[in-house]
Amino acid sequence: MFKGLCAFPLTPLTEGEIEEKSFISLIENLVAAGVDAIGALGSTGSYAYLTREQRYQATKLAVSTAANIPVITSIGHVRFEEVVRLAEDAQKAGVSGVLLAPLSYQPLSTDEVFRFYERISAELSVPLCIYDNPATTKFEFTDELLIALSALNQVGSIKLSEIPDNRELALQRIDNLKTRVAKGVTIGISGDAQSANGLMWGCDVWYSVIGGMFPHYSLALTQAALSQDERKTHKLNSDLNPLWAFYHRHGSLCVIATVAEIMGVVASPCLPFPLQTLTGEERASLVQTLKQLDFLL
Amino acid sequence: MFKGLCAFPLTPLTEGEIEEKSFISLIENLVAAGVDAIGALGSTGSYAYLTREQRYQATKLAVSTAANIPVITSIGHVRFEEVVRLAEDAQKAGVSGVLLAPLSYQPLSTDEVFRFYERISAELSVPLCIYDNPATTKFEFTDELLIALSALNQVGSIKLSEIPDNRELALQRIDNLKTRVAKGVTIGISGDAQSANGLMWGCDVWYSVIGGMFPHYSLALTQAALSQDERKTHKLNSDLNPLWAFYHRHGSLCVIATVAEIMGVVASPCLPFPLQTLTGEERASLVQTLKQLDFLL
Repeated sequence: MFKGLCAFPLTPLTEGEIEEKSFISLIENLVAAGVDAIGALGSTGSYAYLTREQRYQATKLAVSTAANIPVITSIGHVRFEEVVRLAEDAQKAGVSGVLLAPLSYQPLSTDEVFRFYERISAELSVPLCIYDNPATTKFEFTDELLIALSALNQVGSIKLSEIPDNRELALQRIDNLKTRVAKGVTIGISGDAQSANGLMWGCDVWYSVIGGMFPHYSLALTQAALSQDERKTHKLNSDLNPLWAFYHRHGSLCVIATVAEIMGVVASPCLPFPLQTLTGEERASLVQTLKQLDFLL
Repeated sequence: MFKGLCAFPLTPLTEGEIEEKSFISLIENLVAAGVDAIGALGSTGSYAYLTREQRYQATKLAVSTAANIPVITSIGHVRFEEVVRLAEDAQKAGVSGVLLAPLSYQPLSTDEVFRFYERISAELSVPLCIYDNPATTKFEFTDELLIALSALNQVGSIKLSEIPDNRELALQRIDNLKTRVAKGVTIGISGDAQSANGLMWGCDVWYSVIGGMFPHYSLALTQAALSQDERKTHKLNSDLNPLWAFYHRHGSLCVIATVAEIMGVVASPCLPFPLQTLTGEERASLVQTLKQLDFLL
């Protein structure tokens, strides 16, 4: 499950409520393409903006729509007692695994983060992916901490947020992790623009935002990279550079949500208030870019 | 209400539940000292870790214990629809004002933050304090944005998080804000170690963590600073330097919660999991420091 392409769909919202029909269509698109796993309610799925009831509702919909494809869902929350309840809900809804970022209001120490995962690990009967996401959590994992956490019972994967740009340094880091994490724990890459490199340099799974919208293309890119086809990987990835430039300016969620609105697969606006999709010139420019990227559609 | 000393008590928790008796005692201590306002459920009161029901429960307790002293409470939440409900709850509980930080999972733009306050301002019938807290929200307010927000109907105060160390620059910044914010909007200082200076340099109110535990001393410091008694202010503030050194190393919440545990006014541990109070040598050293600071007690 924590291998290949794990695609993260949006959770389209209208006035704070889930647009079920669009959400189901997004999942069906992933099922038809045959992604390796579906990451319902990742950061891209706006999990942090939903009530407990909505998270259960969306997870159930995802599982029932996903057929035989494993669904993983985020159980993150600032309040630990709520993380426990979300874990129960997710398992009841039939997920194959859960994602968990160390959300906090106050900054956390390494020791606090370790205890947090240790305690939730004891509550779980499905595998857990450690969700490194410093842009939203402010917590920076060290490799030593990730390696220590990998030994916890339920940990099945680690989603890295950043790898060095430099090939040698990235290879060194990934190799160090892969050698030292507990047996069977996979290393995942996120941050779409660096993910093709991450896969070529040894990561096992791409936790992918673009995969939630364009799964066929993302699968082709994943397969090229995992089979070390450098030329094909480079071509498929660099063709997306215009999109990565938008990511760089506005963040992946804002861009992919705008793309979904432009394509008409979700209602507009689709993000939780006060988050906004692109407007004005940047939106017009994204419309033009998408026309050039018609191979995605 | 948004003047003088606004004291922020802890919300002591045991296994995620509010210890009502200790919480009431903390509030009674503030009432006896005659603070200008009580900031129930600030960051120090762990608001972000509580359920909606617990926030209502704590706010009602604070209001009923506070007698004639105005109570303000935080209505912050990542989900906007929940902010609206928390505002309703707070007003129903009888608060005199609310605090609101721009909590978000995704980074917010200036425009998104403006719309956020604009929309909640329209829902409120009590004054709002804009809660600048970049250490927890990651959002950095510009002075231009604060000035624009001050014109919203319900805005009554701005809680600054950081002022320049340099006296001239700090005076310039505070003077610029005071001259340009809407009439009647007060400027507050937070960050205990810089607050005496902030008050001497023109701020109207101290949003105080130490004030929630040691209100008599904090009132004396507030009065000295507001009356521009530089010598007395310097003496009262520099006597606290050993405590500010702990703040600097561990953050104000961890330190003041450890102080409360050491004094026996709350059960131990009193913070929401996974946050920890000080242990080992640092705790022993804080015990010694408190003995030297016996004038606080």
